[in-house]
Amino acid sequence: MVGLNITHIYLTKECSEDEIVEEVLKLNEDPGVHGVCLQLPSSVLTSRVANALKPEKDVDGITDLNMGRLVRGDFSKGFVPPVASAVANSARSGLSLHRFKNKKKKKKDLCVFYVSDIEISRAQTPKPVTQLAEEIGLLPGELEAYGRNKAKVRLSLLDRLHTQPDGNYVLVAGITPTPLGEGKSTVTIGLVQAFSAHLKLNSFACLRQPSQGPTFGVKGGAAGGGYAQVIPMEEFNLHLTGDIHAITAANNLVAAAVDARMLHEATQSDKALFNRLVPSVNGVRKFSPIQISRLQRLGINKTEPTSLSPQEVSRFVRLDLDPSKITWQRVVDTNDRFLRKITVGQASTEKGQIRETGFDIAVASEIMAILALADSLEDMKNRLARMVVGTSRRGQPVTAEDLGVSGALAVLMKDAIKPTLMQTLEGTPVFVHAGPFANIAHGNSSVLADKLALKLVGRDGFVVTEAGFGADIGMEKFFNIKCRASGLRPNVVVLVATVRALKMHGGGPNVSAGAPLPKEYIEENLSLVADGCRSNLRKQIQIAQLFGVPVVVALNVFKTDTLAEIDLVCQIAKECGASDAVPCHHWSQGGRGSVELAKAVKEAVSRPNNFQFLYNIEMPIVEKIRTIAQKVYGADDIELSPEAKAKVDYYNQQGFGSLPICMAKTHLSLSHMPDKKGAPTGFILPIRDVRASIGAGFIYPLVGTMSTMPGLPTRPCFYDIDLDPVTEEITGLF
Amino acid sequence: MVGLNITHIYLTKECSEDEIVEEVLKLNEDPGVHGVCLQLPSSVLTSRVANALKPEKDVDGITDLNMGRLVRGDFSKGFVPPVASAVANSARSGLSLHRFKNKKKKKKDLCVFYVSDIEISRAQTPKPVTQLAEEIGLLPGELEAYGRNKAKVRLSLLDRLHTQPDGNYVLVAGITPTPLGEGKSTVTIGLVQAFSAHLKLNSFACLRQPSQGPTFGVKGGAAGGGYAQVIPMEEFNLHLTGDIHAITAANNLVAAAVDARMLHEATQSDKALFNRLVPSVNGVRKFSPIQISRLQRLGINKTEPTSLSPQEVSRFVRLDLDPSKITWQRVVDTNDRFLRKITVGQASTEKGQIRETGFDIAVASEIMAILALADSLEDMKNRLARMVVGTSRRGQPVTAEDLGVSGALAVLMKDAIKPTLMQTLEGTPVFVHAGPFANIAHGNSSVLADKLALKLVGRDGFVVTEAGFGADIGMEKFFNIKCRASGLRPNVVVLVATVRALKMHGGGPNVSAGAPLPKEYIEENLSLVADGCRSNLRKQIQIAQLFGVPVVVALNVFKTDTLAEIDLVCQIAKECGASDAVPCHHWSQGGRGSVELAKAVKEAVSRPNNFQFLYNIEMPIVEKIRTIAQKVYGADDIELSPEAKAKVDYYNQQGFGSLPICMAKTHLSLSHMPDKKGAPTGFILPIRDVRASIGAGFIYPLVGTMSTMPGLPTRPCFYDIDLDPVTEEITGLF
Repeated sequence: MVGLNITHIYLTKECSEDEIVEEVLKLNEDPGVHGVCLQLPSSVLTSRVANALKPEKDVDGITDLNMGRLVRGDFSKGFVPPVASAVANSARSGLSLHRFKNKKKKKKDLCVFYVSDIEISRAQTPKPVTQLAEEIGLLPGELEAYGRNKAKVRLSLLDRLHTQPDGNYVLVAGITPTPLGEGKSTVTIGLVQAFSAHLKLNSFACLRQPSQGPTFGVKGGAAGGGYAQVIPMEEFNLHLTGDIHAITAANNLVAAAVDARMLHEATQSDKALFNRLVPSVNGVRKFSPIQISRLQRLGINKTEPTSLSPQEVSRFVRLDLDPSKITWQRVVDTNDRFLRKITVGQASTEKGQIRETGFDIAVASEIMAILALADSLEDMKNRLARMVVGTSRRGQPVTAEDLGVSGALAVLMKDAIKPTLMQTLEGTPVFVHAGPFANIAHGNSSVLADKLALKLVGRDGFVVTEAGFGADIGMEKFFNIKCRASGLRPNVVVLVATVRALKMHGGGPNVSAGAPLPKEYIEENLSLVADGCRSNLRKQIQIAQLFGVPVVVALNVFKTDTLAEIDLVCQIAKECGASDAVPCHHWSQGGRGSVELAKAVKEAVSRPNNFQFLYNIEMPIVEKIRTIAQKVYGADDIELSPEAKAKVDYYNQQGFGSLPICMAKTHLSLSHMPDKKGAPTGFILPIRDVRASIGAGFIYPLVGTMSTMPGLPTRPCFYDIDLDPVTEEITGLF
Repeated sequence: MVGLNITHIYLTKECSEDEIVEEVLKLNEDPGVHGVCLQLPSSVLTSRVANALKPEKDVDGITDLNMGRLVRGDFSKGFVPPVASAVANSARSGLSLHRFKNKKKKKKDLCVFYVSDIEISRAQTPKPVTQLAEEIGLLPGELEAYGRNKAKVRLSLLDRLHTQPDGNYVLVAGITPTPLGEGKSTVTIGLVQAFSAHLKLNSFACLRQPSQGPTFGVKGGAAGGGYAQVIPMEEFNLHLTGDIHAITAANNLVAAAVDARMLHEATQSDKALFNRLVPSVNGVRKFSPIQISRLQRLGINKTEPTSLSPQEVSRFVRLDLDPSKITWQRVVDTNDRFLRKITVGQASTEKGQIRETGFDIAVASEIMAILALADSLEDMKNRLARMVVGTSRRGQPVTAEDLGVSGALAVLMKDAIKPTLMQTLEGTPVFVHAGPFANIAHGNSSVLADKLALKLVGRDGFVVTEAGFGADIGMEKFFNIKCRASGLRPNVVVLVATVRALKMHGGGPNVSAGAPLPKEYIEENLSLVADGCRSNLRKQIQIAQLFGVPVVVALNVFKTDTLAEIDLVCQIAKECGASDAVPCHHWSQGGRGSVELAKAVKEAVSRPNNFQFLYNIEMPIVEKIRTIAQKVYGADDIELSPEAKAKVDYYNQQGFGSLPICMAKTHLSLSHMPDKKGAPTGFILPIRDVRASIGAGFIYPLVGTMSTMPGLPTRPCFYDIDLDPVTEEITGLF
């Protein structure tokens, strides 16, 4: 995310039209300058200025525009015009606005300026979310604004639009990525910008909310990038509307309840526990509804506290959790590696009940996966109640409802279940909702956001939703887990590829974050590209076809890609079965750079679609795992550790055998070996352990070790993040 | 908070006027019924119904009302009329609305129904916060709505109203409370309801945001109670606008930075650290602004990374934190006792860098105290940067800015600094902002909320703000810490007392939560009352007078208080120097029950006010502590432990000697001994340890052990908290 490697001209108050034209003419003649982007308020972006620019250097196509159509903003301050509300949903990407920050123009090398994502984001004033809501057909009562730029949308909308036909459902997945990522989020945003702002078709992007951990750690934000962003990016990347904080609060209430309950059971008699759990209030004792549910699960069909036998009292009051079999972890939304493994309960007040446990990053909480899969408030509440926190000494699963905490969890999560409405740089609507891990969970945005969006766009509209990691992981889980939960059926898969990743799969040298890219990735190399296409790209296309869904390959173009490389990718992709394959320039051009992709997607939805799940849900757990390993990953077979086998037996015995499978596998290879690129074959997939998220509703086999708590590097991103206390502007987010 | 112990009549659709009148007449004659509260929509609250009720049984004074003035609501559903917006700011407390919930009327004992706070809260539909904002003179651009019922207010308002005179500034403090609490919050809310809705004077309540820990633990919510509440109480008690979550995120980012930095320093050479901390980007190395601040603090006046000597590099890169002297704790907003003392860093990835530490409840974070004391974004940012997280092996304090994290903290807190606007049951405005601990911090709501409110109410208006615990703690800190930070001067202190607490101070038996009250507290006992007044009440009045501020005693009346007891309290309070003393009935009557108090406060502000601080800030630390102990607590002297003495020396040496003092003492006695009631004398106050919150800006001596992490009981509040997934109604919050 280093910004655009093209020349920008900034405006200062003092610049006259003559001076700008003179600067443009110089750049025209400079052989080192390959592209010019005029970032000028429309008041000085006159046709004389636009015409001065040579068309072959015109990155944004400003010379093609009818200058009279440009919207004029308020430039009283000489800087950024607040045009978003005026030009939203209209072709606008030719007018790249940029706030001049008293930078000295440094004449270096190619006269290149870098523009950060937050600078681009801030240069565009978003239209009020109330206006956006009106444009997309929401009633005022269906919106809960959170400040000016974002709002929660009430689920009652689903009832109102019950009879409205769904729009087209597009999944954005990717080939196996390099560690740098290949731009699925930017493709998603560019695609809806193309649909809504350029092709005048209703569209919605459904994105995941990012964790704050990486924002302040290594990776930076996740609002897209360049001219394909969700704005304001700082709100997207920070607290948003508080959903992750609500998850943290709910998750940690469960954890506190687990340990406190173990302490109270360890220090009290059955009778004392019963007297406290079912107290006499004004001489009357009664069970709370949550306690009656527990009694029913225990097979005690009584509702009168005094009627329980001493043995029934004991079974009722003692969850009898085995401290060595607590699976519930605490969470924080911070990269705090020192919390990976800790010992709790060391204060004397806890009477020696110490135990080892750990914290995960908040988005790894099962509650996040539940938020993403729930299709109503009631469904979420039921899933929260079913969450298993550990096992009793008798080997029975203990749930959140057993702890008496499930009602409080639903209360804590009652606002989080409403998707958050935001907008792209070009004023098109976006839902941001949920963001479960893509390994120990399913890595997709929420079912509810997709459902609301599909109703809002209407029959001819498009909802573009994104699946984490490569298609072998995110897309497989999207189909087998998310679509099973939602009942929705996708119309087309957009498979994102980059020349860089394809070269890596074709045998190029190692790519790693922080290190300079080897020359193979900077210079043309058709042979590496072709080999990458015929291995990983082909395999990922085939995986989508297993599910019977048409595939459009979106090649996310980088400035170092040559025309020959781009053409080669598109040609081979089509040979491998893609409905179409098109280059995309959304990063530098916004929606205009993705118009061809949008057209290809629109064409693909008219193709035959024979969606099917990969496996029958009633198949034995091991068979479901084997099916994914062989058909999706290309493994010869699977091999379960003794621990994994024992867990499978336990889950079968507990009646969890017919849940879908959520593989926790590296995303850096189709296999379990991160360094095996392309399309590996001839391997046995080892299943180290098998775990379960019963509330979310899936079994997750562990293929290798998954880190659920990132760390901070020596110089975390936060070093550069700052706030101007006068302007309230944030710097350093990217 | 068990609700009103008076009879309520609920309306069902099927009730005719005749049936209601018949029921009223029966209650008139029932000697077991002492009070009747008609909770009926105005459509059926006819004058015939109102006149049927005997005046002596009329709790709400409905028989006094001119029935024609009652506002009629929309009763199409037969239940709750959404009248708030129509009747807000008008006398309305005679119309107690209550939603009928298909409860069977149980004819028990005294025909008493209990109404919970959340039922009262929910029965009143709040007016839209945008309307409230307009009523109090905010411009639309100064408001950031968070849903329909709450909004953040921008600090730019202070600039706009710069020339506006401040209103009257009223502090609500209390006598030394019983463990049950004596109702400062309800007095605060009742008082503003009286001012605005009954006396037609502009007023604002400034309250603290409660922690979620107690809400789900033992204590329940903190929105007031009965007919003196902030509504919707569930939003007040849950996530509100996310400020506590922001504090949690900021606090824990610092903690993660501390441990990660110690790990990186332990495992890297000076050169490696320097290369990572000041990386070469495109061949250019430069310090970030935050790093230049650190260099300056180190006395290294260089800005060119390559110009540092190896020794300077070493001093720059090594914070050299002493693991045994880290004072920064992590926080969660959950009662999680097992996190009181923990060991972190036990995963192999942390390379054996384990250490003992702990979590506090989020509101105990220094960042919360900073939020409460900051008077601008810039001030908050500077305080965040100054926070000391531990001590280096050379004995130097290490700050958040040294860690490079202070800019990111300001970013995380940029919205939290804006106070949240809500409303009382009677539609009058409330700011909810900050909620620091009242022992290790100063226990007052925010400086900024008070400042904004004082401008908004104007010269003749009233801002009522609340200080935690008894006046010896909360009020003393309000004057010496908060007023010093804000520059504001209070006009009057309202000192809340209850007959219950006065009897305890007069020698009554022990009062404890959960246990039934001894008969002394239920039956008239004038001697205990008198003794309590002449000890604790007198002393607390004298403390306020030390600061030169007039005192009005507010007696929060309970149903068991007799007229003779009430009269006696008021009489003795005035003898002891109170400007006035009045009984208050806000719990059962709302603002109407506090009109006399409001009149007394209005009268008191016209009295002479000679505000002065208790001590000169430049006095030595020990002298400041001694002054508070002797003059406020009544101690003979203080005695510092060797550890405390050493800390005082250290703080003096570091230049922290001229900070104000924030005593961490029990609130259950004027002394350090919780069981010494009344006004103890002849004791030496032991100072166990002395700590410092340098960012917040105070030194806090520890008088005894302070718990900064509550625990969960066997049956926490959460057992009864539930959400109806269809109506989205919350039950069980109180």
